[in-house]
Amino acid sequence: MSDTLSRITLARRPKGDPVPEDFKLETGACPSPAEGDVLIEVTHLSLDPYMRGRMDEAKSYAPSVDLGGTMTGQGVGRVLESKADDFAEGDIVTGMTGWASHACLPGSELRKLDPSLPPSTALGVLGMPGLTGWVGLHSFGKPKKGETLVVGAATGPVGSMVGQLAKQMGLRTVAIAGGDEKCRLATDTFGFDAAIDHRAHDDAKSLRAAIADAAPDGVDIYWENVGGKTLEAVMPLMNVHGRIPLCGMVAWYGGSNIATENQLPGMWRNILVKRLQVSGFIIFDHWDQYPAFLKDVAPKVAAGEITYIEDVATGLENAPDAFIAMLKGGNTGKQIVKL
Amino acid sequence: MSDTLSRITLARRPKGDPVPEDFKLETGACPSPAEGDVLIEVTHLSLDPYMRGRMDEAKSYAPSVDLGGTMTGQGVGRVLESKADDFAEGDIVTGMTGWASHACLPGSELRKLDPSLPPSTALGVLGMPGLTGWVGLHSFGKPKKGETLVVGAATGPVGSMVGQLAKQMGLRTVAIAGGDEKCRLATDTFGFDAAIDHRAHDDAKSLRAAIADAAPDGVDIYWENVGGKTLEAVMPLMNVHGRIPLCGMVAWYGGSNIATENQLPGMWRNILVKRLQVSGFIIFDHWDQYPAFLKDVAPKVAAGEITYIEDVATGLENAPDAFIAMLKGGNTGKQIVKL
Repeated sequence: MSDTLSRITLARRPKGDPVPEDFKLETGACPSPAEGDVLIEVTHLSLDPYMRGRMDEAKSYAPSVDLGGTMTGQGVGRVLESKADDFAEGDIVTGMTGWASHACLPGSELRKLDPSLPPSTALGVLGMPGLTGWVGLHSFGKPKKGETLVVGAATGPVGSMVGQLAKQMGLRTVAIAGGDEKCRLATDTFGFDAAIDHRAHDDAKSLRAAIADAAPDGVDIYWENVGGKTLEAVMPLMNVHGRIPLCGMVAWYGGSNIATENQLPGMWRNILVKRLQVSGFIIFDHWDQYPAFLKDVAPKVAAGEITYIEDVATGLENAPDAFIAMLKGGNTGKQIVKL
Repeated sequence: MSDTLSRITLARRPKGDPVPEDFKLETGACPSPAEGDVLIEVTHLSLDPYMRGRMDEAKSYAPSVDLGGTMTGQGVGRVLESKADDFAEGDIVTGMTGWASHACLPGSELRKLDPSLPPSTALGVLGMPGLTGWVGLHSFGKPKKGETLVVGAATGPVGSMVGQLAKQMGLRTVAIAGGDEKCRLATDTFGFDAAIDHRAHDDAKSLRAAIADAAPDGVDIYWENVGGKTLEAVMPLMNVHGRIPLCGMVAWYGGSNIATENQLPGMWRNILVKRLQVSGFIIFDHWDQYPAFLKDVAPKVAAGEITYIEDVATGLENAPDAFIAMLKGGNTGKQIVKL
């Protein structure tokens, strides 16, 4: 292969919110597959909030990206050359390609896609975000018919999965989203019973009053992937024996948006007095549930019973800007980069 | 009956730490039992940290004590007169007598005690504190042989139960206690593998270093009934998939000891990144497990395999001072008032 490899590397570690200078577009020779490997031309790249954590040196649940190393991430692509059993030129596959135009990966780390669905669904509604919502809701949210669920970042690929599954199970679903457009999407496209624009509320108290109106019986499950003002608003509304699956805290990722008041004692009091269950979880521990998830959800996606929205940026060189905007809520739906 | 009833009432709601003026000793005529009721002469009264919450007007998991009302609490006593089936004069019983010399309660709310064990054990090692430790460790701590458990307030009636049960299950047990004497008790009497005096450490960082030394493989279960400095010290030492049964926050009950720094984002990050399970629980939800607890633990107490310490104050009039001292850690072992 004589193709040129393009990739986005980590030029420096961000201080707070990432900026374009933290990334660098580099080019080089395309790798050749060794025995057992597959060379892929990447067609779609997934951008996800967890990647922000990988840019820090701080110990997290997964290794940091090295300075000068390719940004990690899941991609979808077409097989250009295969030296692995089970894969042939032209197959559409997914794997951890990184932010790159091409990737050379062991066949054992790739998965062939069902050609009847758009390949990008493997990155969103039928990928890690969909699985996160499905596993977290069932395993840690433990939804019961008639209960009330509040979802932060409700039009994102995780939140929209959680909301749709819960609605189908007979829960009242309340969306928190940023801006009018996302609130409309939440109710009209994803079927939430109510949607609240957190940008219309300057502080947690005002946001709390709006959520209380939309959740007159209190909150049984709070899907927490935001932190900050939303967490502060919802916590006192939790019902006894409520559950808080915790899979993100995007409002706090950059180290910004941290109030000076010590909110911990109040939070702790709520967990205690309401007998809440707060369950931190990371989807990478639950990949074993992927086949069960796919069996349940893929037919629903094919039938239009579970819907999804993608926000598609074009060109690898635009991945950093799309990522930076996504962390600030600038995207609508699952953020994809089309190469 | 012509006995005089003495009782301790709530004279005013405390601001922060309770003071003697918040209580009042009142006397009056002793009640006569109606049909179905039993009149008890209280011999032992239990003092427990949860009572601090009942003194506030704030909504908690149980109703507040009314101003002028008798302080609530569990007692043990002798039946003086019974108009209930199953109870006869001279029986030794336990129930929610309140802080009073006598109580008139329906037979259905009383339990007869096994005469082969000291009656005060029904308030401590075989009562609510013992049950709290037993239920919380098994249901929410989920201990596994070889793991490390850290216990706050380790020589208290809950902490000492947790430590002894865990040790018998093959865990490494680390006690946090206040002062040399309690640290010695923790290791010599309750069999903890190590004990750390939190008073010897001015800040969370220093306390954390001492706990890290005593828990070289990290912390799998943190028994959290303290809050404050101890919580802050332990949290970063938690292992992935650690569990935090949360049944108290005595350091924060009075509204004091609250640092000005906002510790919530850091705490939340730990729960997420380490995939911790934080489970608020209140023993009043779990009384159905009392028979199973008694069946398991009473023979161990009788055989000396589970040991306990009681701190006995004498005279109902001294209950407020004993309670105030207990909230500051002034007692050693289960606080009882002997009438």
